[in-house]
Amino acid sequence: MNIKPIHTNVVVKPKKEDDITKSGIILPGSSEKERPEQGEVVAVGEGKLLDDGKRAPMSVKVGDNVMFKKYSPDEVSIDGEDYLIVAEGDIIAILK
Amino acid sequence: MNIKPIHTNVVVKPKKEDDITKSGIILPGSSEKERPEQGEVVAVGEGKLLDDGKRAPMSVKVGDNVMFKKYSPDEVSIDGEDYLIVAEGDIIAILK
Amino acid sequence: MNIKPIHTNVVVKPKKEDDITKSGIILPGSSEKERPEQGEVVAVGEGKLLDDGKRAPMSVKVGDNVMFKKYSPDEVSIDGEDYLIVAEGDIIAILK
Amino acid sequence: MNIKPIHTNVVVKPKKEDDITKSGIILPGSSEKERPEQGEVVAVGEGKLLDDGKRAPMSVKVGDNVMFKKYSPDEVSIDGEDYLIVAEGDIIAILK
Amino acid sequence: MNIKPIHTNVVVKPKKEDDITKSGIILPGSSEKERPEQGEVVAVGEGKLLDDGKRAPMSVKVGDNVMFKKYSPDEVSIDGEDYLIVAEGDIIAILK
Amino acid sequence: MNIKPIHTNVVVKPKKEDDITKSGIILPGSSEKERPEQGEVVAVGEGKLLDDGKRAPMSVKVGDNVMFKKYSPDEVSIDGEDYLIVAEGDIIAILK
Amino acid sequence: MNIKPIHTNVVVKPKKEDDITKSGIILPGSSEKERPEQGEVVAVGEGKLLDDGKRAPMSVKVGDNVMFKKYSPDEVSIDGEDYLIVAEGDIIAILK
Repeated sequence: MNIKPIHTNVVVKPKKEDDITKSGIILPGSSEKERPEQGEVVAVGEGKLLDDGKRAPMSVKVGDNVMFKKYSPDEVSIDGEDYLIVAEGDIIAILK
Repeated sequence: MNIKPIHTNVVVKPKKEDDITKSGIILPGSSEKERPEQGEVVAVGEGKLLDDGKRAPMSVKVGDNVMFKKYSPDEVSIDGEDYLIVAEGDIIAILK
Repeated sequence: MNIKPIHTNVVVKPKKEDDITKSGIILPGSSEKERPEQGEVVAVGEGKLLDDGKRAPMSVKVGDNVMFKKYSPDEVSIDGEDYLIVAEGDIIAILK
Repeated sequence: MNIKPIHTNVVVKPKKEDDITKSGIILPGSSEKERPEQGEVVAVGEGKLLDDGKRAPMSVKVGDNVMFKKYSPDEVSIDGEDYLIVAEGDIIAILK
Repeated sequence: MNIKPIHTNVVVKPKKEDDITKSGIILPGSSEKERPEQGEVVAVGEGKLLDDGKRAPMSVKVGDNVMFKKYSPDEVSIDGEDYLIVAEGDIIAILK
Repeated sequence: MNIKPIHTNVVVKPKKEDDITKSGIILPGSSEKERPEQGEVVAVGEGKLLDDGKRAPMSVKVGDNVMFKKYSPDEVSIDGEDYLIVAEGDIIAILK
Repeated sequence: MNIKPIHTNVVVKPKKEDDITKSGIILPGSSEKERPEQGEVVAVGEGKLLDDGKRAPMSVKVGDNVMFKKYSPDEVSIDGEDYLIVAEGDIIAILK
């Protein structure tokens, strides 16, 4: 991966709706309005800057399959594939 | 449970309105507008990040029957059942 | 009491307007707009989370007769009686 | 006084406009819009909660004659007399 | 002076526009919109409450000739003269 | 470079859309709305002021090729070339 | 200079647009909307109040040629010349 996010940014390869439905275990709820998205973490930032100048460890790591709120993440294309930049605070859970 | 919430997120299995009414002890008030929901905690996050980089312990644990504000929690379907992702700060009380 | 509030939430049994008027010592002011309500504390939360992860002691305790701002507290029915969930920060004073 | 304010709340017996004018030393300015009110402090709260869980001392004490911003203080009647609940932060000055 | 401001409040005797123009050294700029006012400090508050419960020293003292933003300071009449209550944060500079 | 940014400001030489497309590895996503810009860091500020008066190290350094949110960065022309002043918090990632 | 700014205020002698253009090295960008102004620092405040009551050192000093955001700085005339009062946080960079 040739992209190194800073702060608490996370690069996520979003799962296509079809793939989520096929895997079938964990799906967004039936409500259209509040359906979080899913994706795989491909790069993580440095962690939140603490008051003493240190960084808090990130709550997710590369390879985690995560569920995140779909506010308006920045989109980026790397080697022809689409990725999303998601703030760690918008990630809700790690799916196993 | 194949979902591990991060931050202060909590996965809650919401109780159906009928089940709450039947159990009958603790019910939402009569006002339509401010009726908190109830549910069972099935997974809890890591706890709030403190200034020193540690995590505060969560105030609820798996198995707790909780009452929470029904703002707009994210919905998720796991193994065909509906769950809600609720921020710990929106949980009001543990019901015994 | 089968309800254990978390954070700084307080469960209050509200006094009926008639009972307040009869007891007669401390009444809401004549202005309709800014009349705080009264009630008895029946359960208290854990206290505010401090920066070091400890909890500040609550300023009210079970049995206190309190006056509180009537913003929009959550309503709950326990054993058929109506209660309000009030944030400690909305409690103004303890009445003796 | 049968009322014990919590947090930084202060119970104030407001001075009537006539009494202020008669005493005559310190009066609100001529502008209608920004005229602070005056009153006597009859009960004070516990003081602001500090980060270490202690309380900061209150800047006013019982008996102080204070000038305060008239935002929208809660009104309360005690033994038939009207009082205002004023947040310490809305008190501007002590009058001697 | 029979008024003791609390918090970071400062009592200022405002200079009349004519007096400012006559003294002539430091004047508000030509723009009507952003003209700070001038005045003499006659009483100062206790200083900002710090996290450890101490007070930061005030940046102005009695006798200072100050320039301040004219948001909407409270007005007060003392012994028949008009004064303004200005928050320390709205004072821009000390004029020598 | 004759410009020394202060605080967390960063001077960035923005890449032209054509150059980004030609290099071709990392491109903004297809959505028009959320396309971050790219550029080369030519000067960095002092870092965020911490509570103890020290400065946190900057997350980017001169020469880094960065992707940043295009809110409304200040524009400046130096020796006839256009640069942008970007707050460190608006930089999302370093591209390698 | 007979003016001593307090807090993080800075007194700046703004450069005239013509003078900036003639010196010619560093110019505002071509966009009308986001053109920062330039000027010379003639007086600086005490620095930001830290949590422990100390002051952080200012990032600019008297004599610095600075670029700053032109929100709505207060204007002041000293000895017949126009100056701006700029908050340190609105200064972007020092020009050499």
